[in-house]
Amino acid sequence: MKIVKHSGDIVDFNPEKLKKSLMKSGASPAVVEGILRIIRKELYEGISTKKIYKKAFGLLKKEANSHAARYNLRAGLQALGPAGFFFEKYIARLFTAEGYLTVTNLILQGKCVSHEIDVLAKKDNAVMMIECKFHSRRDAVSDVKVPLYVFSRFNDLKDKQHVIFSLKDTVSKCWIATNNRFTSDAIDFSKCSGMSLLSWDYPKNNNLKTKNDIDCLYPVTCLTTLSLAEKDKLLVLDILLAKELVNNSDPLEKIGLSSNRIKNVLKEVTELCRCD
Amino acid sequence: MKIVKHSGDIVDFNPEKLKKSLMKSGASPAVVEGILRIIRKELYEGISTKKIYKKAFGLLKKEANSHAARYNLRAGLQALGPAGFFFEKYIARLFTAEGYLTVTNLILQGKCVSHEIDVLAKKDNAVMMIECKFHSRRDAVSDVKVPLYVFSRFNDLKDKQHVIFSLKDTVSKCWIATNNRFTSDAIDFSKCSGMSLLSWDYPKNNNLKTKNDIDCLYPVTCLTTLSLAEKDKLLVLDILLAKELVNNSDPLEKIGLSSNRIKNVLKEVTELCRCD
Repeated sequence: MKIVKHSGDIVDFNPEKLKKSLMKSGASPAVVEGILRIIRKELYEGISTKKIYKKAFGLLKKEANSHAARYNLRAGLQALGPAGFFFEKYIARLFTAEGYLTVTNLILQGKCVSHEIDVLAKKDNAVMMIECKFHSRRDAVSDVKVPLYVFSRFNDLKDKQHVIFSLKDTVSKCWIATNNRFTSDAIDFSKCSGMSLLSWDYPKNNNLKTKNDIDCLYPVTCLTTLSLAEKDKLLVLDILLAKELVNNSDPLEKIGLSSNRIKNVLKEVTELCRCD
Repeated sequence: MKIVKHSGDIVDFNPEKLKKSLMKSGASPAVVEGILRIIRKELYEGISTKKIYKKAFGLLKKEANSHAARYNLRAGLQALGPAGFFFEKYIARLFTAEGYLTVTNLILQGKCVSHEIDVLAKKDNAVMMIECKFHSRRDAVSDVKVPLYVFSRFNDLKDKQHVIFSLKDTVSKCWIATNNRFTSDAIDFSKCSGMSLLSWDYPKNNNLKTKNDIDCLYPVTCLTTLSLAEKDKLLVLDILLAKELVNNSDPLEKIGLSSNRIKNVLKEVTELCRCD
């Protein structure tokens, strides 16, 4: 059975791959088997992975919202857009969760010109800059030009002292984060130049996909019990991660949810953030 | 009288500016005064500079094709698109005219990754790389990210020996050329980093505008006696500059022009390339 990927590529349907991603949602083996059975029946030659994903999402949601939310991560990251602003805040939160101090959107004067830096993070006296590349389109990739220009930016900044967390901070490390993928050239240049990358699937461990599974750092945009407009309101209230709603219904009241809906959202959030 | 610029900005109509650009076309002061008189009568509140330009172009063309061609330079550069391929060749020709050896589109291996270089030019044993940024849209500018990524490219290449013109060339200089403009940040960073820029109006002297006036390096796309399709055919035949047609009607025959039309084109070319 041939299916069509997001990229337009045609590949064989791989039931193992679908099973693996369904298992990651937190659903039980029996539930996953049930869903697989239903989907297999509905497959047809040339069906898109998007359609398969949508069917699986619907079936998972019937079982438990939190499973669907976990399965929904990639789309949840994309829903942080269309501008890059909330993605930058989300990336800052990931570093905060690892014990960094963070600030977003700071303009620093380099040797040659001034630069707007998306995220700055400090731990143990080391300060790093993080350039965030948010793509609204699922198939957009960050090519080698991104690490090339970021590296010049870093070099322009690194020999100067800046007022960031203290009066005399120096930027000693450089990261680039994207919700999609990097090209292999972008990865090669970054490695060779001593820059670190974070993407949907890079590095192999501790990427956006796995960080969320391990530390439950799911963005609120993953939740299935809220509308898009309600998620946007939460983002504006500076609620970026689902876990920020655990034991905290204030923001949900502020955006005008009924007590019944608040109960549903909190149930999903609690199930989703079991790693806490 | 208020007029609307390409950028959407609204400014006062400046007859001096129009007069200056008409004079540069090579038309006599009497002709220019005549055109100005006609255009003044046809102006209305909120007319676009594009419309004014079109009227002036039509009136110049009635006088002499070569004047209109000269006036047509900016649009002629744009007509080298929509891809950047012919703009790169055109830029190579400008350097050839200054006594450089040039090659276009070469892949060179740097310290970290390989890079596709648009133009390489050699004179007196110095080799420079030229990155070309072609914009189809008139108001697109090259911002600071361009010199930032090009500078990393240059740094990745400059310490290695390459097989370009000889077996052991080193790239010692870096240029960026665009048909439009650079932002002030792009200019500041390039100056500070030792890179050279070439744009429609930068540097103040010897930019694309003035290079053409002094050395008659007009692209064939400026010509008013050829259709767009015919110009494209000339580009494919590797005829980039109008002056390449002086005393050379072969390419015009090859693209299928009648002897009468060839006469007209050669007349325009000869008048246009009087600097030779």
